[in-house]
Amino acid sequence: MSAKKYLLGIDIGGTKLAGALADSEGRLLHKMRHPTEAHQGSQHVLDGIICLAQEVLTQANIASSDVSCIGVSCPGPVDCETGIMYSPPNLPGWGEVPLAEILQREFGIPARFENDANAAALAEHKFGAGVGYKNMVYLTMSTGIGGGIIIDGRIYRGAHGSAGEVGHQTLMPDGPLCGCGKRGCLEALCSGTALSRIIQGEVERHPESLMLKLADGQAEKLAPPVLVAAAKAGDETALEIWETAGYHLGWGLANLANILDPEIFILGTIAIKAGELLLKPTRQALNKFIFNRHIPLPDLVPARLGDEIGEYGAIAVALAT
Amino acid sequence: MSAKKYLLGIDIGGTKLAGALADSEGRLLHKMRHPTEAHQGSQHVLDGIICLAQEVLTQANIASSDVSCIGVSCPGPVDCETGIMYSPPNLPGWGEVPLAEILQREFGIPARFENDANAAALAEHKFGAGVGYKNMVYLTMSTGIGGGIIIDGRIYRGAHGSAGEVGHQTLMPDGPLCGCGKRGCLEALCSGTALSRIIQGEVERHPESLMLKLADGQAEKLAPPVLVAAAKAGDETALEIWETAGYHLGWGLANLANILDPEIFILGTIAIKAGELLLKPTRQALNKFIFNRHIPLPDLVPARLGDEIGEYGAIAVALAT
Repeated sequence: MSAKKYLLGIDIGGTKLAGALADSEGRLLHKMRHPTEAHQGSQHVLDGIICLAQEVLTQANIASSDVSCIGVSCPGPVDCETGIMYSPPNLPGWGEVPLAEILQREFGIPARFENDANAAALAEHKFGAGVGYKNMVYLTMSTGIGGGIIIDGRIYRGAHGSAGEVGHQTLMPDGPLCGCGKRGCLEALCSGTALSRIIQGEVERHPESLMLKLADGQAEKLAPPVLVAAAKAGDETALEIWETAGYHLGWGLANLANILDPEIFILGTIAIKAGELLLKPTRQALNKFIFNRHIPLPDLVPARLGDEIGEYGAIAVALAT
Repeated sequence: MSAKKYLLGIDIGGTKLAGALADSEGRLLHKMRHPTEAHQGSQHVLDGIICLAQEVLTQANIASSDVSCIGVSCPGPVDCETGIMYSPPNLPGWGEVPLAEILQREFGIPARFENDANAAALAEHKFGAGVGYKNMVYLTMSTGIGGGIIIDGRIYRGAHGSAGEVGHQTLMPDGPLCGCGKRGCLEALCSGTALSRIIQGEVERHPESLMLKLADGQAEKLAPPVLVAAAKAGDETALEIWETAGYHLGWGLANLANILDPEIFILGTIAIKAGELLLKPTRQALNKFIFNRHIPLPDLVPARLGDEIGEYGAIAVALAT
């Protein structure tokens, strides 16, 4: 029997499914995307996953018997040992889905699983801004704030697979309501959802802000991209929102640093788009709230993999040892 | 050459030095204590350490050649790789002290090092309330709040040996001043020092409280032991202070749980004395602030080793792999 040369990756998102084929060292050879169409129910999504995986193999002209592992990046919660997904919030109507078993039956290939934040952390560690670091924390920063903790090069999952919920540390018990039902979580202060809420409030108080114009007067466009554009144009209200978001983020990261002492923080989506608008005040607050001033401040950088992080994440999960 | 059968432990505290001899499985055979006399300078303390170790061996009638390892529990910061101690705050006048080298020269035995919070965590893990758990967090709760994180049975030290500073997560940036120079750290809200400060303030506002009487009218006795006694006697002011301390502690522990997902929290000194007075409100707040309600709440228990935790800690360091 010849050595199996390929890895298959599947990234299950709320809006898109991504499939990727890589060589045994994780070099991306082929990729493909389908819409998730989550509203059509779990069987439809599962059929879409199988179909996407088959198409990737067919287009790349690779037999499933030449694939050693399928890596799956999926919305949490997922049991990484059994490969069972549990009612992900953005895939309505799913109960328990034994996806490892389904993939094994369909393709005869073992599958590995991580939630999307952990998969993205692995991707940045193996292919992005985290290459060469042993201890790092990755933060997704889009609608929510998820986290993936890497210790000695491996994902740290905790006792029940629930570690890394860094966006749900409470900073202000009387602060704004979070999607999780608590108040004043880091996520409720500087996620995309939080920033949109803050922008909408601030624009009412500061009608002179550029932001309403940049949003074409539409409230639903008052979101992070407009906040970036306005701040780059020197809009005071936008700059103040970034200052405050960075203060909260740096405070949360300092708490993490005091507990975990990582070498680097890698920040996704919003931080990539905002760059130093967010990173500079974040670094200042990190420096203010960190305990041990005798060690180097952790590096703080935007993620490097951009829009392909889903594909790289799924492949990184297949590669992980 | 016969197998070496013994372990030597040295616990370096600000007020006392403790020496312990154990068999190869960590069973305590002999122990001895000297005052540290830190005010007499580092050479005096070093002489005291050597003298104590020699006395333990002499009294137990064991040759140093039968000891495989010296475990040292010492005030941080310490470089666990090199065995160099760096200017511990409660040992004034110490610069860099290459204690591993000194012990090797004196006894011909290799030494292992941990800071006292990590050593205590190892002790509880190997001999106390943490036996059988893989992932745990230990909190010293005396004058300050230190922490030791155990992951998969081993101390997690972080990238620069500075992980586990759980007492210096910031809960209230405008809160009371902490010994570290920041404001509103967990330590500034519910350590022994913080509780004493709070008691002294509350007694002024509530002169009817039992506490002043229990302290014989002396401000310096308004400290945690009086707080325990008054609360047990039903004193409202004392009970409210425990409620608030537990609220802050549970908030901090929930932040930790959201990040680390440990199986158990083990709390030292003050929690041992206060028991459910502190643990009950702490558990309530932990439950309120924890993110993932689908997993079991971490266990929350007082430490079990009590006054001998220094000796057990040093031996646990010698035992650690």
